[in-house]
Amino acid sequence: MKKQNEKSVDKEVKLVKIIGSYVSDHFGELWDKSLNDLIEEAVLGVVESVSENNDFDPKEIEAVYIANMASGIFNNQLHLNAIVSELLEHFPPSIRVEGACASGSLAMIAAQDSLNSGRYKTVMVLGVEKMTDFNSNEATKVLSSASDYSFEYGSTFPALYALLAKAHMHKYGTTREHLSAVSVKNHRHALSNSKAHFKKSFTLKQVSESSMVADPLRLLDCSPVSDGASAVILSTKNSGKLLDANKAGGDNKASSGEIDYKNKPKIIGFGHAQDYLSLAKRKSLTSLSATVKATRNAFKQANINLQACNSLRSTAGTRAEFTAKDIEVAEVHDCFTIAEILAIEDLGFFKKGTGAQATLDGKTTFGGDVVINPSGGLKACGHPVGATGVKQIAYLAELLEKGIKIEGDKLEKIKNFKYALAHNVGGSGATVVVHILEK
Amino acid sequence: MKKQNEKSVDKEVKLVKIIGSYVSDHFGELWDKSLNDLIEEAVLGVVESVSENNDFDPKEIEAVYIANMASGIFNNQLHLNAIVSELLEHFPPSIRVEGACASGSLAMIAAQDSLNSGRYKTVMVLGVEKMTDFNSNEATKVLSSASDYSFEYGSTFPALYALLAKAHMHKYGTTREHLSAVSVKNHRHALSNSKAHFKKSFTLKQVSESSMVADPLRLLDCSPVSDGASAVILSTKNSGKLLDANKAGGDNKASSGEIDYKNKPKIIGFGHAQDYLSLAKRKSLTSLSATVKATRNAFKQANINLQACNSLRSTAGTRAEFTAKDIEVAEVHDCFTIAEILAIEDLGFFKKGTGAQATLDGKTTFGGDVVINPSGGLKACGHPVGATGVKQIAYLAELLEKGIKIEGDKLEKIKNFKYALAHNVGGSGATVVVHILEK
Repeated sequence: MKKQNEKSVDKEVKLVKIIGSYVSDHFGELWDKSLNDLIEEAVLGVVESVSENNDFDPKEIEAVYIANMASGIFNNQLHLNAIVSELLEHFPPSIRVEGACASGSLAMIAAQDSLNSGRYKTVMVLGVEKMTDFNSNEATKVLSSASDYSFEYGSTFPALYALLAKAHMHKYGTTREHLSAVSVKNHRHALSNSKAHFKKSFTLKQVSESSMVADPLRLLDCSPVSDGASAVILSTKNSGKLLDANKAGGDNKASSGEIDYKNKPKIIGFGHAQDYLSLAKRKSLTSLSATVKATRNAFKQANINLQACNSLRSTAGTRAEFTAKDIEVAEVHDCFTIAEILAIEDLGFFKKGTGAQATLDGKTTFGGDVVINPSGGLKACGHPVGATGVKQIAYLAELLEKGIKIEGDKLEKIKNFKYALAHNVGGSGATVVVHILEK
Repeated sequence: MKKQNEKSVDKEVKLVKIIGSYVSDHFGELWDKSLNDLIEEAVLGVVESVSENNDFDPKEIEAVYIANMASGIFNNQLHLNAIVSELLEHFPPSIRVEGACASGSLAMIAAQDSLNSGRYKTVMVLGVEKMTDFNSNEATKVLSSASDYSFEYGSTFPALYALLAKAHMHKYGTTREHLSAVSVKNHRHALSNSKAHFKKSFTLKQVSESSMVADPLRLLDCSPVSDGASAVILSTKNSGKLLDANKAGGDNKASSGEIDYKNKPKIIGFGHAQDYLSLAKRKSLTSLSATVKATRNAFKQANINLQACNSLRSTAGTRAEFTAKDIEVAEVHDCFTIAEILAIEDLGFFKKGTGAQATLDGKTTFGGDVVINPSGGLKACGHPVGATGVKQIAYLAELLEKGIKIEGDKLEKIKNFKYALAHNVGGSGATVVVHILEK
């Protein structure tokens, strides 16, 4: 790999830190909370997550990016940027971003652009969806507005993903049991996540015999209609601290009360790609090309950033290329069980056609090759659509900071991770965003 | 004013150019066009606007920002970023932005951040709204989702702006005739705009006697429910051409076939501010504080940019502060006649309380102090809400490039402008964005 000179490094290592994170307590059918309640809870929660141990003035939040899919329909309320701005006494400028179920990660991108342009140093990203005040059949209809109305009118998302499942089964021999294995694992993971919508384990048989929704997808293959919000605070402040500290003689330790930016999780890469909205126009039904493309771009950026950082770190020098093999944990977009199988293949964790068996073999849980959806994923943690992309980042940031308790031989132990990936999909794969995080 | 050193100048003068612009032909009740048709027309139109005289490959468009308020309700279609992306064969990443009637200018900001972060060099911003397939009473209800559902449920926008009008009349003696003068002027301006929804002139008496909507606002005080789309292509490419050319000996002329970036309209400043969503919480009903704040920020940025540019221009050196007095033409958010009066005061064109009389006195038309809404504004050019903020920029960019034909003494002549301002409001003033353009 080519050597980076100091000037290019200086430009490249302007990494965005995740200095605060919050997931609403909890995702679920929250009939006692309104849309505005959920937004307020997330604003207060994420500010508290930074300020509890640090000197942090909420006025440092210079802008808010709010992600939501369909509050105009679910809650008769658009213009959510105004709703969130007035919760902070300095009324920061705010922008709402929508890209169906990928709204959250698209808001993350817009927020990072605002930081990387130099316009802001600290911003909030908040995702929210309040879905259950609506009749659930109607919710399915509302969600179908994320598909191609002119080509696919009448198709609900279970029906569209059922087509993808059928194609995968036909081409790779994926079975009913394989699909069930995704659901069983994600429900088991959710047992250790206090924020999860469902905290109940199921057997393969229970999933395989749950009621049919759209053949081959059954009830326990489908993520639920959930209410919830999530938020992160992103900052480029002291982003050069590691570098500056090296120059100043290695004093990297932050003073008491000061935010230790250096040790906050960092976003080292992201990718964003699109495909046809309608399945009818796609080249393949067994791979989401936008996932493949977004992943390539995210790793490309991560490699540039890691090289740039390493060339100034005394420890490193150059390193081998950073790939999916380096990722130890990922939150992927399992709106349906088949979606997780497609994702872990398209993300490069497993070869195409082998993701289903890998899941059944336990390779996607603790002790396996890569932990997929430790939160329980959309399936079991829940899927308040506008919140999901932000929740993935919030959950992973906390996981990188604090590790996760897992059951060992009689004793609980903490499992720590260095690199994590978030994968967020809009529609049936027309919009895909991949983020890569470093501890 | 303090002298800029070369290094800071190099950083500051990274101006975004508007290299292409399109407004759908025309705004109106376009029953033969679907939402998708309008989007496609704007994509093709704006690409054509750049490529007709220049070498321009649409693949240079690295991303698309699409503004829309309520297609999820009006057209059963969310996820518009996917719709627009697939119209370009390279499927550029795309993000939808919503902020009620300020959606268009918020998308402009997100797009500029992506350019200024260095991630992209050329992007498209497209605004669209297809409203008239919906019952018009229902459209008013849909639009009310831009107000505070929890505080103002039941209030339509004519009712909210009627409150603002009453307050202005009470405090400053603004009259029925003053309001009518706004409408008369904007309808007259629209006569020379081929894209306008309404091309019909009215007398003061006709406006004052049109049917009552919400006292004191009458039918001809209100902008219409329109269909339409608009788009611009923004670029930072060759943004340093002016500077580079100076270094290279002053050869500023672009070769035939090449885009003459240097002579394209530039965005020299923008501001974005928020206020309470509900009128009930506001400090004042006779001024939109978000307009005042956004304007201050926009001029602040424009001053920095102009200083930075001037310090490298052989012609200039330093200059006096750039203010509203330097603006010769503006598109302002006249969703109701009272909104234009509030705007021209809050923007600093006229002292608070004098905007109404200034309008009646002809100070806001050709030959006056500042030409307000030469396109006809929202009132007469039309108000497809998601398109409006982008249309303001597209219209002004073309105006700065080509000037406007006005009637002189028997002969038509071209009026040229150097500085223009666009003012876009969401809701009743909770979100305001101000852009300042230079020829």
